[in-house]
Amino acid sequence: MALVREAVGLTLRTARTSQGRTLRDVARAARVSLGYLSEVERGQKEASSELLNAICAALGLSLSGVFNDVSIELSRHESVTLTVVDAA
Amino acid sequence: MALVREAVGLTLRTARTSQGRTLRDVARAARVSLGYLSEVERGQKEASSELLNAICAALGLSLSGVFNDVSIELSRHESVTLTVVDAA
Repeated sequence: MALVREAVGLTLRTARTSQGRTLRDVARAARVSLGYLSEVERGQKEASSELLNAICAALGLSLSGVFNDVSIELSRHESVTLTVVDAA
Repeated sequence: MALVREAVGLTLRTARTSQGRTLRDVARAARVSLGYLSEVERGQKEASSELLNAICAALGLSLSGVFNDVSIELSRHESVTLTVVDAA
């Protein structure tokens, strides 16, 4: 089953790289450590709600938009799971 | 600014009560403590991704559907914030 923190991490990393920004730049703007942001982006750490707000603000993104993308990413995993089950 | 854990809590509580189920029933099905589920529903505790999966499975909901609802709930707060700013 997909993990929410992985979908959140992928969404945030995709947004950051599409803006051509570095981890260092966004971490500084969000006032979080570079290591923390890196772990969140790799889906290795659960981001607290307060730090998610800070990261989304640093990226100029709305929380609702980010979680809409997270939902789409999660549904992609659910489709893959269904396909695998169908093929079995 | 809205907090993701509050939107997640409200979404899960709304889903549970619309199914006419008790905290005890869902906590048992998800193998989490009743106190933990209650705190998550009230937006007082961040749910880990693993326990979110267990709670969604206990409610018979897809993660993507839950996070689509979370996104809608968050956008509602963003609209309210914009309205307040406009009125100022």
